[in-house]
Amino acid sequence: VKKTDVVRAILADRQHLLPCNTEAEAYASSNIALCKYWGKRNTELNLPMTSSFSISLGNFGSNIRLSVNENVADTACINDQLLDWQSSFGKRLREFLNLFRITPTLGFHADIHTNIPIGAGLASSACGFASLVQALDRLFGWELSLLELSILARLGSGSASRSLWQGFVEWHAGTQADGMDSYAEVCTDVWPDLCIGLLILSDTEKKISSRVAMQRTVATSPFYTAWPETVRHDLSAIKQAVREKDFLLLGKTAESNALSMHATMLSSWPPVLYALPGTVTAMQKIWELRQAGLMVFFTQDAGPNLKLLFLAKDKAHMKTHFPNMPIIQPFINE
Amino acid sequence: VKKTDVVRAILADRQHLLPCNTEAEAYASSNIALCKYWGKRNTELNLPMTSSFSISLGNFGSNIRLSVNENVADTACINDQLLDWQSSFGKRLREFLNLFRITPTLGFHADIHTNIPIGAGLASSACGFASLVQALDRLFGWELSLLELSILARLGSGSASRSLWQGFVEWHAGTQADGMDSYAEVCTDVWPDLCIGLLILSDTEKKISSRVAMQRTVATSPFYTAWPETVRHDLSAIKQAVREKDFLLLGKTAESNALSMHATMLSSWPPVLYALPGTVTAMQKIWELRQAGLMVFFTQDAGPNLKLLFLAKDKAHMKTHFPNMPIIQPFINE
Repeated sequence: VKKTDVVRAILADRQHLLPCNTEAEAYASSNIALCKYWGKRNTELNLPMTSSFSISLGNFGSNIRLSVNENVADTACINDQLLDWQSSFGKRLREFLNLFRITPTLGFHADIHTNIPIGAGLASSACGFASLVQALDRLFGWELSLLELSILARLGSGSASRSLWQGFVEWHAGTQADGMDSYAEVCTDVWPDLCIGLLILSDTEKKISSRVAMQRTVATSPFYTAWPETVRHDLSAIKQAVREKDFLLLGKTAESNALSMHATMLSSWPPVLYALPGTVTAMQKIWELRQAGLMVFFTQDAGPNLKLLFLAKDKAHMKTHFPNMPIIQPFINE
Repeated sequence: VKKTDVVRAILADRQHLLPCNTEAEAYASSNIALCKYWGKRNTELNLPMTSSFSISLGNFGSNIRLSVNENVADTACINDQLLDWQSSFGKRLREFLNLFRITPTLGFHADIHTNIPIGAGLASSACGFASLVQALDRLFGWELSLLELSILARLGSGSASRSLWQGFVEWHAGTQADGMDSYAEVCTDVWPDLCIGLLILSDTEKKISSRVAMQRTVATSPFYTAWPETVRHDLSAIKQAVREKDFLLLGKTAESNALSMHATMLSSWPPVLYALPGTVTAMQKIWELRQAGLMVFFTQDAGPNLKLLFLAKDKAHMKTHFPNMPIIQPFINE
């Protein structure tokens, strides 16, 4: 099964194969997994080994204005900088756009604005591809369901399948070879008091991409075989915590899940270590604050930055300890 | 089975139950495991889940002068400082000495000199208990075999069972409940070109002792079940590397084994992280040097310090990169 097969299957009964608009716009929030996606059962279709569970990041995300014209070359700008199609993100974006190029003469222009650093473990590709599929849907007038858009977004980046909603989202691993049962769904639970702090320790692009790190882990870590069972356990605990508003259970499960993911990388060969010295300092600080009674936990993705989890009642206290840290309340519109 | 049972069994046919000397002296080198000991199948007797394999650290170790007198209180000095029997090492030492106190009125005086920081992951307890059992043997005139002394040393500290020899040493896990088949043996292979660099990043005592960290890992890490198989694989590879003088195999297996051990700790709850910011900086530097062609690897124990593995031909080069690092050639007498 190829990506083109999936796209063809989803668009099979769509009337508008040619764009019905010349321009469309979409925004998607970034998301961070509280129970991580790490490891693929199919690298072509970004089908995951396990389900995962995320929270959206509100105003942190990506906006895209997408336009099409006949007989023009593709162009893309990210934050008003022309994208090099030979760059790593350029290649991925172009490969994805090719899936929707109905006629060979069709040229895309993508004008992307994002307020999160690219390739620094802040899910820039998640919100990037999620906003792109929504813009494509509007441009072509397909009127796809969010479930279908989630499948298309996954073809660009696995975690993008989770970036079409606000709040808690579960991405079902699925079992089918064509991935038609591997899509995300929003969870109806809300938690207005939940706060996420973005502790940015470095915004430079990581040396090892998450897709390379993921494949290396699956291929070489002696602990990867135990990862799916860890996720099954953690996913169930996190969903229970969300249902019951049990912050202690949410925090410790999310932190433990993230550290276990990094443990699978550390035990890979060559080893993968996303932590910087500042990451270790921040972890120690969080553990000290917690020992002193402040209920704060962290999660970490494929990068050195930490995302802190705490409740609104501790917001002022957290601000004194982390003065420059952006704080998001995913369920409060600001 | 209690420690006293093991001591009684080993000393059963020894003629001299009372000291035949009033003073004895012994020295033991510290050792670092190239294939780690992590996790106990019996905490009372320090019986390990797996076998392990170490290299001795030559002049880095512990010297003890031990004396006995009737009707005096126990005293111990470490580097001329009086040891507090209420301290964590004080309690362990006293508990161990009690095993050999034939009459309740016998008082020990231990005068210990060591050139390695205590409790900083540099195997201070390994050389400490190994030198102590040798001094006890001389004091009491038991004339025990090294195999028997290895069993006694293990009762004080697991890794002490490996500190009675110079060079490569294997500690057999054993299977018996009384641990009589859990002792170390020296390996006949020598490797004069092998160098160990002690990269001391902190000499302060660690917050979590290795025995606490070990028990927490066994009890809570989802990856610990895969650790014994990892060790079986790594132990076999390291012994092959030593036989064939395959430095690349030795280095990568030792580094990967150490990182996998730390991965089991990171995935425990509460998480255990022995790395300091400087540990991460040093790891990144080592990986960069290796990518630039310098064959250097590291191993890390229950502390923030790294032990670097390289060959004598690269000694000058290593000295320029790590100017203050003590370098040991375990097979060269200096």
